[in-house]
Amino acid sequence: MAPIAIQSASEYPSTDLKTRFTKSIPSATSTGLTNAGIKHTNDPEPQLSKLDASKLVFERNTSPKALPEPNSPEVWAQNVCTDHMITCSWTSSTGWSTPNLKPYGPLSLMPTASVLHYATECFEGLKLYRGYDGKLRLFRPDRNCQRMLTSATRVALPAFDPKELQKLIEVLVATDGEKWLPKSRPGSFLYLRPTMIANDDHLGVRKPDEALLYVIACLFPSFDTGRGTAALDANPALREKERPGLKLLASKEDTVRAWPGGFGFAKVGANYGPSLMAQGEARAMGFDQVLWLLGKDCDVTEAGASNFFVVWRTREGRLQLVTAPLGDKIILDGVTRKSVLELARERLGGEVEVVERKYTMCELEAAVQEGRLLEAFAAGTAFFIASVSKIHFRGEDLEIPTGKGDSGNYAAVIKTWLHDIMYGQEQHEWGVIVEERQLNA
Amino acid sequence: MAPIAIQSASEYPSTDLKTRFTKSIPSATSTGLTNAGIKHTNDPEPQLSKLDASKLVFERNTSPKALPEPNSPEVWAQNVCTDHMITCSWTSSTGWSTPNLKPYGPLSLMPTASVLHYATECFEGLKLYRGYDGKLRLFRPDRNCQRMLTSATRVALPAFDPKELQKLIEVLVATDGEKWLPKSRPGSFLYLRPTMIANDDHLGVRKPDEALLYVIACLFPSFDTGRGTAALDANPALREKERPGLKLLASKEDTVRAWPGGFGFAKVGANYGPSLMAQGEARAMGFDQVLWLLGKDCDVTEAGASNFFVVWRTREGRLQLVTAPLGDKIILDGVTRKSVLELARERLGGEVEVVERKYTMCELEAAVQEGRLLEAFAAGTAFFIASVSKIHFRGEDLEIPTGKGDSGNYAAVIKTWLHDIMYGQEQHEWGVIVEERQLNA
Repeated sequence: MAPIAIQSASEYPSTDLKTRFTKSIPSATSTGLTNAGIKHTNDPEPQLSKLDASKLVFERNTSPKALPEPNSPEVWAQNVCTDHMITCSWTSSTGWSTPNLKPYGPLSLMPTASVLHYATECFEGLKLYRGYDGKLRLFRPDRNCQRMLTSATRVALPAFDPKELQKLIEVLVATDGEKWLPKSRPGSFLYLRPTMIANDDHLGVRKPDEALLYVIACLFPSFDTGRGTAALDANPALREKERPGLKLLASKEDTVRAWPGGFGFAKVGANYGPSLMAQGEARAMGFDQVLWLLGKDCDVTEAGASNFFVVWRTREGRLQLVTAPLGDKIILDGVTRKSVLELARERLGGEVEVVERKYTMCELEAAVQEGRLLEAFAAGTAFFIASVSKIHFRGEDLEIPTGKGDSGNYAAVIKTWLHDIMYGQEQHEWGVIVEERQLNA
Repeated sequence: MAPIAIQSASEYPSTDLKTRFTKSIPSATSTGLTNAGIKHTNDPEPQLSKLDASKLVFERNTSPKALPEPNSPEVWAQNVCTDHMITCSWTSSTGWSTPNLKPYGPLSLMPTASVLHYATECFEGLKLYRGYDGKLRLFRPDRNCQRMLTSATRVALPAFDPKELQKLIEVLVATDGEKWLPKSRPGSFLYLRPTMIANDDHLGVRKPDEALLYVIACLFPSFDTGRGTAALDANPALREKERPGLKLLASKEDTVRAWPGGFGFAKVGANYGPSLMAQGEARAMGFDQVLWLLGKDCDVTEAGASNFFVVWRTREGRLQLVTAPLGDKIILDGVTRKSVLELARERLGGEVEVVERKYTMCELEAAVQEGRLLEAFAAGTAFFIASVSKIHFRGEDLEIPTGKGDSGNYAAVIKTWLHDIMYGQEQHEWGVIVEERQLNA
């Protein structure tokens, strides 16, 4: 077994203090469904164990699955996970338990479990890449782990040291990477899903006293092979007659994804379920995703579950890459979004102005009508960089240019840079190499 | 076994058609995490089975639990359910399966289950009452079942005939009612929790293809014994030094529960998890719940997970019972709310004007300062009618009168009316009598 660097947990952000401060003050009058935690506020606070990857206990899967062929129906089903998963439970009285790396399998939850009623859940999405140099890489996993802490805090789930979560992710992929992303398949990836759920078995509407952190690795089809709409090639039945690129349906005022003071910035379940109705309606009308607008001015926020960028020329002739800002916590602080912005500032700085600001559908519409809109694209982990070819807004189709036929020019350039970092064609600090474990060693 | 009237399912609202229309149109480019349903839109739609309570299969619990004492720690824990539960599964290709009444126990979910990631979940809360006439009653269960359909639709869960859900609830309580709400304990109740979750085992962000409906019955402590803050009596450690009544902390602009175009009106998990952080902060500051405000004008919406009412005199001297309106889908269409409004209109009509309209904290504040605010109360199933004695808003405490010492006069009157209907002291169509099954017959 190759060594995996496991360090002791360092102190993590002050969220933890707050968690400990607020959790033990019940008030039975005060509930929606009422609070029954009969604790006294002056109980001494027990010493809570921290999340500690170095304590990991490994139970090997003795019935491993066969690896499906690339692009097979099993892969498209998005439900084949690797042989193992990470689990770690938490209680408000003891803190984090010993993490386990164990055979992938079902979870047992009581019908009263908090997560099933109150959406006390959050997750992350990142990928493990098999590089063309034969190495396994994660892409900026520290960003995902930090965001997971932000998301957990937003739905009253427990805090943890993000560095320990990253170590746990690394142990899982180091264990299953060799088999599930074989060196014979460079350019392939696994989708990783760290998840936290509250599994308290009581119905009180209150801050959870029990939680389960788990990490699974799932086979995903490649929706992207270097072009904007490669999924259509992988699945010809889906190809539309129109030119490639995502077709977006702008949301109406009666369907709003996120709101100032809400939780649009966090990767919590509550952002997803309520969006599926509008997504389903968009698909029934032949669109790929919803372009989420906000407010009377129709601020442009996100496309589906991805961030959204436009490249336009201002009326003064300046070339700009524009995306919505993080300030009001409406949109997700995407790792791909951040990376696009950083690469564009670093490598396109002389040519393109990189702008994070509120902008409206009216501005976007005007840019299209005046021939100033050069391209638009969605950016996210699963989506990667996907060019947009049409936006339907208030009864009109806005045709978005796709310079290279199926991708805008800048989208193509940025995508290539990111792709090269992910698959080791460019050595870069964002590509974090994971040493593989030898299961038979 | 006493007969339970089971009729064949009647047609249910058009939601179902829409469900069937939108579910089978995949588009793999279009997902956040992508859609892998490789179905063709021109497949003939299979005949889907409807939810049908008459097909119920009963598996008796051969290891029944002991009934805890009233007000015991088990009851306060809110995690003791009765011996049985209803379950019924659904798939997009076959519809609803045979419902089961079976021993209460854990659910097995794959770590990829939709509900654990995307909050594809909704629920209801209603109570079963043991009347002073020895009979079991539900309170307006048709309203809960209809709202469950509304909530399910909002998060892309399958449609069903609400009448069939009501029959399933009735079967459960008819079975477990005799033991768990013994005739020797008139004036007691069980809390019922119909729940629906998406249990698809894949990570695609899309309309679920599998769901599980279940109904459980849980012991809840009585947070209400006829007075506003009786929970304090039941749990003296929680009693504060101040006069009784709920103390509410008005939310700030940076924490919003629901918004126009969102899902505040639906009983979906997504409304709860994200509210727990503010709830925890309020409790840490010594308040019972959050009074949720919205927008720059600070519209008053809900208190915790309950509806909120004020009784005031206008400057013109008119006496009004006021609550926020349903029109913009911000607040829950509460069964208790509706019942309060209907009873007040019917029985207090000559005396009190009943008003559903937007109103602001400024109006409420002015009414307090000018001595025109007579009382305020929260209303909901678990909460019942709970008088409010204080609201903290922008650094100031607003003291709310509680005419009868611990409850406003109108709150007390309305509560008595509702209580009498629930426990059979007034025969009323809202109190739906359930015939009990003899398990040994």
